[in-house]
Amino acid sequence: MTTAAPTADTEIITAAVLVIGDEILSGRTKDKNIGYIADHLTAIGIQLKEVRVVPDDEAEIVGAVNALRARYTYVFTTGGIGPTHDDITADCIAKAFGVAIDVDPRALAIMKPAYAKRGLEMTPARLRMARLPEGSELVQNSISTAPGFKIGNVIVMAGIPNIMQVMLDAVTPQLKTGRKMVSETIELLRPEGEIAEMFGNHQKEFPDVSMGSYPFVRDTKVFGTHLVLRSTSPERLAVALAGLKVKLGLG
Amino acid sequence: MTTAAPTADTEIITAAVLVIGDEILSGRTKDKNIGYIADHLTAIGIQLKEVRVVPDDEAEIVGAVNALRARYTYVFTTGGIGPTHDDITADCIAKAFGVAIDVDPRALAIMKPAYAKRGLEMTPARLRMARLPEGSELVQNSISTAPGFKIGNVIVMAGIPNIMQVMLDAVTPQLKTGRKMVSETIELLRPEGEIAEMFGNHQKEFPDVSMGSYPFVRDTKVFGTHLVLRSTSPERLAVALAGLKVKLGLG
Repeated sequence: MTTAAPTADTEIITAAVLVIGDEILSGRTKDKNIGYIADHLTAIGIQLKEVRVVPDDEAEIVGAVNALRARYTYVFTTGGIGPTHDDITADCIAKAFGVAIDVDPRALAIMKPAYAKRGLEMTPARLRMARLPEGSELVQNSISTAPGFKIGNVIVMAGIPNIMQVMLDAVTPQLKTGRKMVSETIELLRPEGEIAEMFGNHQKEFPDVSMGSYPFVRDTKVFGTHLVLRSTSPERLAVALAGLKVKLGLG
Repeated sequence: MTTAAPTADTEIITAAVLVIGDEILSGRTKDKNIGYIADHLTAIGIQLKEVRVVPDDEAEIVGAVNALRARYTYVFTTGGIGPTHDDITADCIAKAFGVAIDVDPRALAIMKPAYAKRGLEMTPARLRMARLPEGSELVQNSISTAPGFKIGNVIVMAGIPNIMQVMLDAVTPQLKTGRKMVSETIELLRPEGEIAEMFGNHQKEFPDVSMGSYPFVRDTKVFGTHLVLRSTSPERLAVALAGLKVKLGLG
């Protein structure tokens, strides 16, 4: 993973992910990007606040892009930037920003020799992948070369997971990041109902440490619980964790 | 899978999924419910049109529930119905609908004997799981007994996948469903750039058959394509598929 440019340590940087594609909504394709991007953003100090999945429909994509880019520091989109008729993301982003879209010479300069090397023709369909909204910066794609792009606070990436991942790495050094969220987990082989009151009271003692309880079921009969503490302050996290362990008799 | 009650075959029935939980957005938990629900709804004749993931935050949950329930036939929520302080879904749903919430005697009647049998006390925290918004119907949970619920067009389910799945089965017979979407897939070991123009033209010939092209990369060097045709008419699907095979030289 590429590390992001260091920035103001105390700033809260937020993001949304917008997954674009009928195939996710029909169930045909199981999304693998949301969890990957969530992990990546958490690791570099960006807080993912919302995810939406929308179909390949212009009004839906434009509406979601504009709703999300107004609310969060960054919006990461996945899907819909290939060469076929159902790839409408770049056009929708141009529409959302109210700018023109055309073949970008920088994209073409990367794609042409790479396609030639692979013995592939630069068909009109492939040329479509070099079309970028006016004012975009390229996001490099070291696998298949057709680039993603960044316009304003919106980063547009491929839907294929391994291509999305190299694009996310490529754009990461340009991102503002804030203080990293750190976390600790305690696994209990007891149902959460037994510790819920104590845990709720512990949360009240540490309003600056976010506490979540995540039950799990193993073999449909073992009811266990993961208690997760999260904070941007490692010091406060340590104090809250130590206090919780004492209350659980693990101290 | 439980089959849904048969209903008007031609009606379009739509749905949204609302995933509730900080743990999905932080990357700690990888969602397994979206794809499962998508498959289930497609199979029973309900079209999933949008997914959102929001944090454990009242304003975010209430806002998303109200936005989605106004737009789609059904909204399915997952997560946030356990006994701990971070489980705020039921309260948020009550707030979204503007109704009271209290311990429901029907829920209690199921939970009390089941908990007694497992040797578990009915703690105040567990009692929280019997609180339902006024006007809710129970959605049975054959695993851990604490029920989900349905209020208006919103179905509220657990976040743990195997519990969510039994709740989805339990509510399915009550759902209105429309004509089922059927699909056919052709796998090509060629990049989509080569067939994009032909495929776009084929789509224009069959506006009532939705056509998607899904590239895949194997071992970072084999660029292949899945062409997927989808329609609520098996007859039209067959005609479009046959025509496409001819154009691909597979006919």
